Amino acid sequence: MSNYSKLDSYLEKNLDENLKELVRYVAQPSVSAQNLGMKECALIVKEMLEKRGFSAEIMATDGAPVVFGERKGKSDKTLLIYNHYDVQPPEPLELWESPPFEPSIRDGKMYGRGVSDDKSHLTARLFAIDSILEQDGELPCNIKFIIEGEEETASAHLHDFIRNNMEKLKADACIWEFGGVDHREVPMQYLGLRGICYVELTVESLSTDVHSGLGGSIFPNAAWRLVWALNTLKGLDERILIPGFYDDVIPPSARDREFMEQLPDVADEYKTRYGVKEFIKGLQGGTDLKVEEVFTPTCTICGLNSGYQGAGSKTVLPARASAKVDFRLVPNQKPEDILKKLRAYLDAQGFSDVEITYHGGEPAARTDPDHPFVKLIVDTSADVYDAPMQIVPLIGGSGPNYPFVHDLNLPVVTMGHGYPDTRAHAPNENIRIDLYLKHARHAARVITEFAK
Amino acid sequence: MSNYSKLDSYLEKNLDENLKELVRYVAQPSVSAQNLGMKECALIVKEMLEKRGFSAEIMATDGAPVVFGERKGKSDKTLLIYNHYDVQPPEPLELWESPPFEPSIRDGKMYGRGVSDDKSHLTARLFAIDSILEQDGELPCNIKFIIEGEEETASAHLHDFIRNNMEKLKADACIWEFGGVDHREVPMQYLGLRGICYVELTVESLSTDVHSGLGGSIFPNAAWRLVWALNTLKGLDERILIPGFYDDVIPPSARDREFMEQLPDVADEYKTRYGVKEFIKGLQGGTDLKVEEVFTPTCTICGLNSGYQGAGSKTVLPARASAKVDFRLVPNQKPEDILKKLRAYLDAQGFSDVEITYHGGEPAARTDPDHPFVKLIVDTSADVYDAPMQIVPLIGGSGPNYPFVHDLNLPVVTMGHGYPDTRAHAPNENIRIDLYLKHARHAARVITEFAK
Repeated sequence: MSNYSKLDSYLEKNLDENLKELVRYVAQPSVSAQNLGMKECALIVKEMLEKRGFSAEIMATDGAPVVFGERKGKSDKTLLIYNHYDVQPPEPLELWESPPFEPSIRDGKMYGRGVSDDKSHLTARLFAIDSILEQDGELPCNIKFIIEGEEETASAHLHDFIRNNMEKLKADACIWEFGGVDHREVPMQYLGLRGICYVELTVESLSTDVHSGLGGSIFPNAAWRLVWALNTLKGLDERILIPGFYDDVIPPSARDREFMEQLPDVADEYKTRYGVKEFIKGLQGGTDLKVEEVFTPTCTICGLNSGYQGAGSKTVLPARASAKVDFRLVPNQKPEDILKKLRAYLDAQGFSDVEITYHGGEPAARTDPDHPFVKLIVDTSADVYDAPMQIVPLIGGSGPNYPFVHDLNLPVVTMGHGYPDTRAHAPNENIRIDLYLKHARHAARVITEFAK
Repeated sequence: MSNYSKLDSYLEKNLDENLKELVRYVAQPSVSAQNLGMKECALIVKEMLEKRGFSAEIMATDGAPVVFGERKGKSDKTLLIYNHYDVQPPEPLELWESPPFEPSIRDGKMYGRGVSDDKSHLTARLFAIDSILEQDGELPCNIKFIIEGEEETASAHLHDFIRNNMEKLKADACIWEFGGVDHREVPMQYLGLRGICYVELTVESLSTDVHSGLGGSIFPNAAWRLVWALNTLKGLDERILIPGFYDDVIPPSARDREFMEQLPDVADEYKTRYGVKEFIKGLQGGTDLKVEEVFTPTCTICGLNSGYQGAGSKTVLPARASAKVDFRLVPNQKPEDILKKLRAYLDAQGFSDVEITYHGGEPAARTDPDHPFVKLIVDTSADVYDAPMQIVPLIGGSGPNYPFVHDLNLPVVTMGHGYPDTRAHAPNENIRIDLYLKHARHAARVITEFAK
C-alpha cells in the first residue's frame, strides 16, 4: 500500500474546518416523513459537491429530489457512492439533551438529528476527496454520488430513479451510506440488508368521538377493532400468523452461520444498553441470538394512536385508531407480496374495516463476501483501525440496496463511523469525532487503491 | 300551582346579563385531568354564590377543593344542589370551530368546553334563585350547594368529603348536576347512573426506544405486549373475559324494561348523529338496544399511546405503551372489586409486566321512581315544557350519586338543558339558550313548590 501520511496529515489539520461544514448540514432540518426542509437541504448538498469540482444536479422524482454528482478521474474505473440527506423525525423532543437541529459538540462527540444517519457519512467522504485533491489536484478514478432524500421513508422513489438512469449511474463498485465499528471498536463489513414493508393500519368506526358513557355498550370502538386486528397478526410466541408470510424465506446457510459465529456475543451488551430483561422467543444469547436477530422477518408495531392520551382520564369512545407496523423482510420476501397477503388475511379474519396505507418498502439484498471489492475495503482498513475488519453477511436494518445489487449489478460495501451508542432514529443521536476522522482516512485509501 | 308569570318575566328580561356571568365562568379553564385553573375557577364559583347572599366556603380535599354554599329560607326543608366546576380536557383542539375557552354565541347556542357539562347548569339554577330573591327578598326553603372540582376525573375525593361532612350536607332532597331533553324535545328524568372504574394500562419493555431494524426479531416490544394484554380483556363478541366480572351484576327488572319500552327508539338517531353503520352484538334497535345501552357493563378503550404517531413512517421499536380503559359498571358491581379481578386476570394470563394505574371509580346508584320528590319534578315541568317529563330508570353515564343516595339517603333527581347535540366531552360542546331559559324557569318552580 502507498504511503498515506500526507493525506492523513491534511485530514488532521483540516478537521475543525470540515466539521463546520457538517454543522451547517445537520442544522438544516430535512425530515422526509414530514416533508420538512427537503429542498433547502438538497441545495446544501449540491453546493458541497460543487465546492469539490463535481458537476452536480438536483434531479426531480415523484418524492424528494435526488442529488447526483460526478467528477472524472485518471483511471477508467468508476466508484459510486450512495448517501441520503433526509433524517428521521426528531420526536420525542423532550428527551434530547441539546436541540436536535442545533448540532452540539461535547466530549469528542457531535449531537444532532441525522448527524450519524447519514449526514456525517457524506461529509467524511467529501473530506477524503478534499485530501486527495489537495495532494494530486485530480481524482485517481471517476466518482459518482447518488444522494437521495427518502431513505428514512423507505426510499419510495429510488428504485424507479435508478431504473430510469441506468447509464448515468453505471459504475464498477458501490460504497453504501453507512458502516461503523462494534462495541469492541472492530470495523464491520455489512454485506446485506433486510427488506421492509411499512404500513399504517387505520380504523374509523364512527363519524365523531362519543362520550364513553353513551356508546360503550352498543357502538363499535375503533381502538378495540384495531387491537383485535393487530392481535391476529402475531401470536404471543412471536410467530407471524399471516398465511404464506414465511413462504419465500431463504433460511441462513451454513456459511452464514459460520460468519455469525465469528462475531462477538451481543446478549450482555443489549441488556445493558437497551434495558432488555429477557429476549423474546426464549433466546439466551450466542449464535442463535445473532442469527435470529437478522435472518428472521419481523412484524413490529412502531406506533399506536387513538383517543385520549393526555394526563389522567377522559371518558371518550374513540372514532379513530391507527397503528404503524413495520415488517422487516429477509431474502427472498417481497414487500408487495406481503402487503397483498396482509390485506387478504385481515379480510378473511373479518377486518375489512381496517384500512391499510402502504408507506413504502423494498426487498432484502446481499453482496457476495468473496467479491474482490470487499477484500479491498477490508485490506485498506488495516492501516487505519487497530483490529481487522470483520464480515457480517446480513444486518437487521433495511435500505434500498436491492436496485444497486440487482439492477446496477454492483458489489455494495459498507464503511463508516457508526458505533453502538450512535442512537440513530432515537433522541441524542451522535457521532464520535475520532471515528469520523478514521472513516475519512479509510475512504482516502479506498479511493486511491480502487483506482489502481 | 302558583302563578309564575312574574318570575318568568324576570328571567326573560335578565337573560343577557345572566349569560355574561356564564361566559366569564366558561372562559376560566378548569380541566381537572390536567390540574389546570382549578383554584381560579373555585374562586369564581364562591363569588357567584356570595353574590346571591349565600355563605360560601372553599373546602380542601386531597384533590381539587369543593365549594360549599348555604342560605337559609322560610321553611325548614332543605334542598341540596350538586354541580361541578371542572371540565373535560378540550383536546383535540383542531376540531373546535371556536376556541374552547373563548365562549362564543352563534345561532342561539353558546359554545365552549364545559358550557353544557356542567357550568351552565349551575348558572341557570343561580338565575332561578335570582328571580325568587328579586320577587320575595328571601328563599322559600334552605338551599345548599355542593360544587366539586373532580367530577370529570371520577370524583376521586367526593365520597370521603361527603362522609366527613354528613351534618353539613343534611337535606331532604337533591337536584343532580345535569338533565335535559331528548331528540323529541321531551324533558327526561334520569333516575340512576352507571358506575365506573377507570384505569391506565402501561407496559415498559426497554429502557429506550430502539431502531426497529435492530430489535424487531429479539427484543420485547411494549406495544405488542399491550395489544396482547388488551386482547385478553374482551372478545370479538364484546363479552368481557375477566373472570367474575359479571358476578354482581343485577340485571334489569321487568319494570325497568317497561320504562325503557316507553322511551323512543334511538337506533336511527344514533346512526345519523354518530355515523354508526352497525351496532355491536347484532343489536338492531328497539327495546333491546335501549336496555343494552345502559344495563350492561362495558370495557371501553378510551386511548392508545405508543411510539411514533406523526406523519409517514418512523422505524422505531417502542419502549413504552399505554392504554386508557374505562369500565362502566351497573348495580351492584364495585370498582375496587373489578380492579382486583383485572390485576389477578392479567397476572394469570402472563401479563404481570402490564402496570395498572387506577384513575378513580364509583359504584352505580339509583333513585326509586315512586319517590314524591320525583313526582314534584315531573309535575312542575308540565308548566314549562310542551311534553310531559319521561322517566328513565338508569342511564349510561356515571357520576358520584352513590354517596348521595346511599350515605346521605336522598332522592336524587335530574333536570337541566342538555340536548342530544350538546357534545359533552367532545369538540364544539354547546348549549341551546332557549333550553337554558326553560331550565331556569323549571328550577324556580321546583324551589317554590318544594318549600311548601
